[in-house]
Amino acid sequence: MRRILLTIQYNGAGYRGWQRQKNGVSIQAVIEDALNKIVGHKTVIHGSGRTDTGVHAYGQTAHFDTESKLPLYKIIGGVNAFLPSDIRILNAEDVDGDFHARYSTRSKTYVYKMYVSEVDDVFLCSYVHRLRGQLDVESMKAAAKHLVGRHHFDSFMTAGSGVQTTDRTISKLEIKENGGIPKQITITITADGFLYNMVRIITAVLIKVGQGKLTPDDVLRILKARDRSLAPWVAPACGLYLESVEYGN
Amino acid sequence: MRRILLTIQYNGAGYRGWQRQKNGVSIQAVIEDALNKIVGHKTVIHGSGRTDTGVHAYGQTAHFDTESKLPLYKIIGGVNAFLPSDIRILNAEDVDGDFHARYSTRSKTYVYKMYVSEVDDVFLCSYVHRLRGQLDVESMKAAAKHLVGRHHFDSFMTAGSGVQTTDRTISKLEIKENGGIPKQITITITADGFLYNMVRIITAVLIKVGQGKLTPDDVLRILKARDRSLAPWVAPACGLYLESVEYGN
Repeated sequence: MRRILLTIQYNGAGYRGWQRQKNGVSIQAVIEDALNKIVGHKTVIHGSGRTDTGVHAYGQTAHFDTESKLPLYKIIGGVNAFLPSDIRILNAEDVDGDFHARYSTRSKTYVYKMYVSEVDDVFLCSYVHRLRGQLDVESMKAAAKHLVGRHHFDSFMTAGSGVQTTDRTISKLEIKENGGIPKQITITITADGFLYNMVRIITAVLIKVGQGKLTPDDVLRILKARDRSLAPWVAPACGLYLESVEYGN
Repeated sequence: MRRILLTIQYNGAGYRGWQRQKNGVSIQAVIEDALNKIVGHKTVIHGSGRTDTGVHAYGQTAHFDTESKLPLYKIIGGVNAFLPSDIRILNAEDVDGDFHARYSTRSKTYVYKMYVSEVDDVFLCSYVHRLRGQLDVESMKAAAKHLVGRHHFDSFMTAGSGVQTTDRTISKLEIKENGGIPKQITITITADGFLYNMVRIITAVLIKVGQGKLTPDDVLRILKARDRSLAPWVAPACGLYLESVEYGN
């Protein structure tokens, strides 16, 4: 038996998320179908985690087991030939039998992209979330500092995910602004794990700060309260990207 | 009677080109349908020119006549509310009755975008043309110099467009390379007019030069021969953008 780890890029705009499901086409199902044709048997791929409908990935990871002795480059090329152009295998590597794409994860990094414009940009609208008006990026950065470190993120979690604990460590929360037209703002978050919708809720809260509807101190108060009703917002899926999954020490 | 000039941005990936037609949805038809609802009567918009299936625009222009006394900002906002998110009116302005979006044109600028990668980029594939291998951008720039100025561009025209003359003046032909990953190359061409498929054929020829399949001197020879059979290539529509239409002196 051989275990292979895939690195996968996808444009989530056309899919009902990562996980195989009965109603609607998922990224997992499309990849498994292509993979089956190449390795010659039924496969199940185990992703590093799910992404929701419309969420994109630069570097999702997933492992699968196979008896195939095909060289890795033939697996990459073969699967890509059967995939639609909005999903691509970027890399494949052999890993140990005790490696698991989800449980061996050290950290993950997500990116959330937004732009500020009074009009939809016809090229960005499926890939970058549009905001109107003005955004005070310096206030957003001040608020973000409160969230870095180990905290209970109950206020930033959609219920129903059945997690054991709500404490997570955000090791990086960076907000960058470019000077182009339209103005684009990118939030990058690295953590040892994410609760359900955590990135999209943190983003929504930081946007409220940028719009002057919340202060950085309000964000600290919301964090400490551990009460989801204080932050009942979720930023849209279209701006969210799973940037990378980190393994090892 | 009032004549209004629109500036229009569109993502051409979902359309059968600019011009209204029987089979397939066109950008012109979608805009006219939205406009009719706002001005309250049937309109015909006159574009600066057609764009083909899959071609994009940052700044297409079109004029129409109306009896409506609506302020311009209400026309912009009203039409955008009825347009799909991949077409947007960026501006509207009142113009003289003898102004014509096509015949008053002084010049137009097109941009052709490509990237170099062995793998499709899932976010770029509908918007930027992919090339494999290496591109020698310096050779492309040397070849481009031969095309600047007033020339007969018969070799760079698809037949059947019924033009009177084939001489056009290219006032700018610029090739830029960015240093990102994947490497992206952009060709910008400004001319007083373009023959059918001229930008896409010039681009295809410059790509051949970049790939070492033609020399810059070959391009001069092809230009002087005035023979389309020497350059039987057309770069794909997905990378082409109508950047702007210039009026006035």
